[in-house]
Amino acid sequence: MKYELYYWPEIQGRGEYVRLALEEAGAAYVDVARGSRGTAAMMKLMDGRGTPPFAPPFLKAGKLVIGQTANILLYLGARHGLAPKTEGGKLWVHQLQLTIADFVLEVHDTHHPLGPSLYYEDARPAAKKRTAEFWDERVPKYLGYFEGLLESNGGAYVTGRKLTYVDLSLFQIVAGLRYAFPKRMKAFESDITGLVGLHDRVAARPNIKAYLASERRIAFNEQGIFRRYKELDA
Amino acid sequence: MKYELYYWPEIQGRGEYVRLALEEAGAAYVDVARGSRGTAAMMKLMDGRGTPPFAPPFLKAGKLVIGQTANILLYLGARHGLAPKTEGGKLWVHQLQLTIADFVLEVHDTHHPLGPSLYYEDARPAAKKRTAEFWDERVPKYLGYFEGLLESNGGAYVTGRKLTYVDLSLFQIVAGLRYAFPKRMKAFESDITGLVGLHDRVAARPNIKAYLASERRIAFNEQGIFRRYKELDA
Repeated sequence: MKYELYYWPEIQGRGEYVRLALEEAGAAYVDVARGSRGTAAMMKLMDGRGTPPFAPPFLKAGKLVIGQTANILLYLGARHGLAPKTEGGKLWVHQLQLTIADFVLEVHDTHHPLGPSLYYEDARPAAKKRTAEFWDERVPKYLGYFEGLLESNGGAYVTGRKLTYVDLSLFQIVAGLRYAFPKRMKAFESDITGLVGLHDRVAARPNIKAYLASERRIAFNEQGIFRRYKELDA
Repeated sequence: MKYELYYWPEIQGRGEYVRLALEEAGAAYVDVARGSRGTAAMMKLMDGRGTPPFAPPFLKAGKLVIGQTANILLYLGARHGLAPKTEGGKLWVHQLQLTIADFVLEVHDTHHPLGPSLYYEDARPAAKKRTAEFWDERVPKYLGYFEGLLESNGGAYVTGRKLTYVDLSLFQIVAGLRYAFPKRMKAFESDITGLVGLHDRVAARPNIKAYLASERRIAFNEQGIFRRYKELDA
């Protein structure tokens, strides 16, 4: 079975967490909207009856259509050895992924504090305030939490010796913050040396390394979640 | 086994989605921080080693400590008949719950657009703008989606004839919007007659009815997710 991933073709966005899992697993998949069927195929599934997803990304796996990033990873994790096998382990890793999802929403809010449907330019003063709070309070709280988990288990990965989809997502968080806020992140990285090491270990894994060097990896840009706006990186 | 729910004792907040599920299921549970052990017991678990939750609510179920609202409901749903039994059904209901979680975050952002750590009073002008966008764009999009699901399956509940934890959460969404934005919601309700009917059906279920009339149901207030600020309900 070949998976079908449905996501916006021009951005990493939330689809990237799924792409990283599929790539690490070496799973066969089509990134549908980037192919000849385009976003029209994606819209068609969202307008359908039955179980239409609220928003991309979603994954077609045989007859199943699975939406919500963390939910897709819950499914893929169990099938491709990217999550523990025990019920408690599965729930723990999923819990961590949901915490990452909350953080991703807060990243998005730094440039869209007045709502997702407005243009960045119309919310710039509010974006500056929100970004200041984000770096003063939220980044230390979230990344400090994951740094603490890495420290306390002493392993190479967040749950210990074995990589899970959460590690792939944390790689993306570090990479994204480096792209969007190069100055702030540079100053902050000495507080999260564990996560920086994790980022490097993930980037060096053969499948991920090949993916990052390929055209399948879309470059960061200002339509995605992580956006580089100079005035927010004071 | 008696569940232990850990959540802030003064508010409904995100804990309420778990309380509603436990109550509907008739499950034995203690709302720990509301008892003599107080929030200190909650903080202790969050500071612990192993699998400390990032934030409340979390549920202690035997040896498991499960965090993130939707993750707790995933667990409870499977154990108490509040979710379908098939894998596809489980994932679908969880996906809907994660969409509700996104909406709840946006509700919170209406009064905290510049970040969760600021006081409402310091973000009032931004809150007005965010709330306008919320009602113009986000409420119709999210609630229209769930209204469409109800219409297309023709059932009493979102997945058909049988109640799931998603229905309990949608009850809370309707009740919360009515509390926080009485004028706006009154004008909007004719667009979501299906959800209003769902709200009433959930409220009339014996266990939920008894719960809502009990002291276990905390009243809405201005420390929770749904807050009534007159200037935001224009």
